[in-house]
Amino acid sequence: MDNGKIGQHISGQFNKELEDIRNKVLTMGGLVEQQIEWAVQAFTNGDAELAEQVIRQDNQVDDLEIEIDRECNQILALRQPAAFDLRLLITVIKVINELEIVGDLSESIAKMAISIADIEGSGTKKDSYYELQHMADLVRGMLHDSLDAFARMNVDDVALITGRDENVDREYVSIFRQLITHMMEDPRNITRTINVLWTVRALERIGDHACYVCEHLIYMMKGKNVRHATKEELQKVLDYGKK
Amino acid sequence: MDNGKIGQHISGQFNKELEDIRNKVLTMGGLVEQQIEWAVQAFTNGDAELAEQVIRQDNQVDDLEIEIDRECNQILALRQPAAFDLRLLITVIKVINELEIVGDLSESIAKMAISIADIEGSGTKKDSYYELQHMADLVRGMLHDSLDAFARMNVDDVALITGRDENVDREYVSIFRQLITHMMEDPRNITRTINVLWTVRALERIGDHACYVCEHLIYMMKGKNVRHATKEELQKVLDYGKK
Repeated sequence: MDNGKIGQHISGQFNKELEDIRNKVLTMGGLVEQQIEWAVQAFTNGDAELAEQVIRQDNQVDDLEIEIDRECNQILALRQPAAFDLRLLITVIKVINELEIVGDLSESIAKMAISIADIEGSGTKKDSYYELQHMADLVRGMLHDSLDAFARMNVDDVALITGRDENVDREYVSIFRQLITHMMEDPRNITRTINVLWTVRALERIGDHACYVCEHLIYMMKGKNVRHATKEELQKVLDYGKK
Repeated sequence: MDNGKIGQHISGQFNKELEDIRNKVLTMGGLVEQQIEWAVQAFTNGDAELAEQVIRQDNQVDDLEIEIDRECNQILALRQPAAFDLRLLITVIKVINELEIVGDLSESIAKMAISIADIEGSGTKKDSYYELQHMADLVRGMLHDSLDAFARMNVDDVALITGRDENVDREYVSIFRQLITHMMEDPRNITRTINVLWTVRALERIGDHACYVCEHLIYMMKGKNVRHATKEELQKVLDYGKK
């Protein structure tokens, strides 16, 4: 872990505070990754008990967001940081918001897992769940790698991470079409399929939020807002200052 | 407009900067409100041209977000504000993020308006559009009132605004059920109905984001994070310090 950027303060206490915040963000990230995994597992296996656990655990995610947000605001007020430190704190406030949203999306997948388990009981034929699982792995991987880049404070690979969102979108469109066909073939599938549709949509949005984490990281490291940048503009920002 | 809180600075230039930022947030809010109105109008009237305009105008919303965000960061870095000013700037950064998301949601409604116009041409029977329009009015009103409270820096009515989200959720559930029945009755309706479903979902989320604006405002005025507070906890925070 490259602590260079954080370790340059005269005040050891300030270093400790920033390091503590970074660690809490990573803890929150780990929790959210697990939430995605469990929610999708609950959904594909019709496991209502696991889904309940995801819903309960979302409180922990929410509490961590409030705690980290408060700490960032305290440091901003007391230390009045400038330059990189200021950007770091603003970035943390934005990143934990993304993580909280991903937590909420996982919770809503868990809720759909419960409603689908009610409809069909366990042991029913789970078509299209293979693709859904694959899509979940994709977006979880994106979120993991973007948090890893945040932890290392390194933007070298972020274009590769955000680029993977195209695969997610392709999978989304493909599953979406499949589900529509499925509903048309047999209207009795509609209620169940709508739940699958929401889940796929939630996963697609998790991929977007992983991209936003990368964008916040670029702002922190490069001081540039790339929120609505094209691929080429993004690359230009990333290449700037490289030899 | 109560400028009391902003007008207390020794530096007239600082006052001017904060006032300028607040005005830009309100401009952005006005633009986003219009985006919601036009997007839903385009959707219910099958007006692809108006939908295109919404999509184009979203760039303006995005540009405003980047501009305001940059100004907030500059002030944070140069003025190193404390207490209320610090909270004001952090709140602005969060509020413009909500507005940007609402802008994106309006854009996605506009895109669905185009795809639905492609499917059915204009002049087709538009059932359930009355309820959709009503729901759109509800959430646009919530957003308008929350921005108005932000402009007046007054939290007296925010519990009334966030309370209206229950009506939105009720409408959502009612339209949702209606649409499912509609699909079951005639599977040929499925593709079109899914677009209506996404639109209703987008409106429901706009209502949520209006509530988040209120929550950010409470943080600014009361210094308390009420993001995951219950109704009772929220009221307690609002009552605190009142005689």
